[in-house]
Amino acid sequence: MDIQAVDQFAQQLIKEAARRIRESFSYDLHVETKSSDSDLVTNVDRETELFFIEQIKTFDATHRILAEEGMGEQVTDLTGVVWVIDPIDGTMNFVKQHRHFMISVGVLVDGVGKLGYIFDVMREDLFHAIAGVGAWYNGTPLRKLENLTIEQSVIGINARWVTENKYVDYEQVSKLVRTVRGTRSYGSAAMEIAFVVSGKLDAYMSMRLAPWDIAGGVIIANEVGAVTSTLAGEPVQFLQSNTFIIANPSIHPILLDQYIHLLPRD
Amino acid sequence: MDIQAVDQFAQQLIKEAARRIRESFSYDLHVETKSSDSDLVTNVDRETELFFIEQIKTFDATHRILAEEGMGEQVTDLTGVVWVIDPIDGTMNFVKQHRHFMISVGVLVDGVGKLGYIFDVMREDLFHAIAGVGAWYNGTPLRKLENLTIEQSVIGINARWVTENKYVDYEQVSKLVRTVRGTRSYGSAAMEIAFVVSGKLDAYMSMRLAPWDIAGGVIIANEVGAVTSTLAGEPVQFLQSNTFIIANPSIHPILLDQYIHLLPRD
Repeated sequence: MDIQAVDQFAQQLIKEAARRIRESFSYDLHVETKSSDSDLVTNVDRETELFFIEQIKTFDATHRILAEEGMGEQVTDLTGVVWVIDPIDGTMNFVKQHRHFMISVGVLVDGVGKLGYIFDVMREDLFHAIAGVGAWYNGTPLRKLENLTIEQSVIGINARWVTENKYVDYEQVSKLVRTVRGTRSYGSAAMEIAFVVSGKLDAYMSMRLAPWDIAGGVIIANEVGAVTSTLAGEPVQFLQSNTFIIANPSIHPILLDQYIHLLPRD
Repeated sequence: MDIQAVDQFAQQLIKEAARRIRESFSYDLHVETKSSDSDLVTNVDRETELFFIEQIKTFDATHRILAEEGMGEQVTDLTGVVWVIDPIDGTMNFVKQHRHFMISVGVLVDGVGKLGYIFDVMREDLFHAIAGVGAWYNGTPLRKLENLTIEQSVIGINARWVTENKYVDYEQVSKLVRTVRGTRSYGSAAMEIAFVVSGKLDAYMSMRLAPWDIAGGVIIANEVGAVTSTLAGEPVQFLQSNTFIIANPSIHPILLDQYIHLLPRD
């Protein structure tokens, strides 16, 4: 695979998809409920995914696409080139706020992340990385993350995980919330990951994220020294949903050891 | 007071102050700790406040200024024209994120809010209102807020208030977090208030806010039908810090009655 050529194609494709999404605001949105009231999906989401599939297949018919709406082929292994795509990460923000939603794209070759993109559709901000080469924010190199303490950290975490839940000991998470300098929650995993790789947040964690929520971000994270894993400290998988954490390397082990206590699952 | 003239002056002043803040990013920031580690204050914050004071006094020497850094005269009553100003609301975002911080300005006449402004410095987004006339987002009229249920709501609340604290029964707040469609936290009270008046959030609450955090927003809220009060349901005061809630009118009473249980204070 010609990485430079795919990178150039991917950047153009993402920016064109974003332009189409922005234009859609002139039409009324048709919103339906998916698995729950919290999980909104729109026509625009689906149309954007179809646009990605069509364009990528035209670029190279051997590339496969694993995406949120599941409108591509079934992807059950990661051999060859696989694009992992969330056409709109932060659907509720899209519908309600008309901002704070991202296009997230990761390109894997035989299961290894090679290209990562997070694009803020309304700001037209691009975070991207080429594995082993570097990471950029709108073309400017992103710096390696600097060390800091838990007490100096600002952490992305949804208030939901500070209440009783089936994933983690919420009392330990409460202790974390009282220890750090501050917490934030933006309603888009890709946005929070983009903020960690650029030092705007120092960690972000969630109890259930799908591959398309994180693939682009994990590839960018590697280039700036941010550590990604499941909350059990295991490597992130791109074929299944799991818990997820991305953190500044100086606090990742402390967060897992001292504050994240996974509850036993049935 | 010629409201139209003061409004025109205020808008120009805020935009000029914002331009100066954006320019300051070319210099290194000198950051010192104020009352606590979470409470950062910068040279830019102080310089911006001095700029406001100087310009307002030149415009009309009888106007008084109540502002966060306390660099104007002592304001212990609200007779005459009082400007209530936060030159940078969201200082930690300013330092760490270079975005998501606001200029917040309220103009009171004999204690009654007449003009309100929240300006997103980096986006150059202006939310503003003239009491009894209307409210606008970048010149476009803001709509009256539409009714919705608690379950449909997205609420701005810091995870800190979902942990044990001396202000409210955190178990009731936890119940709220599990009931609503989603929560958000942006680290700037003025930003969250601006999101409520424009329907991007449906409520925002905090356990301790100062007059300059909320004055601009409260005046805008009145014009779109958003309800503001303390968490005890009392009117907001502009001379002291207090608890604070702004909410869509259809959920304000439910939030106070069913989810916010203030703890007895010594």
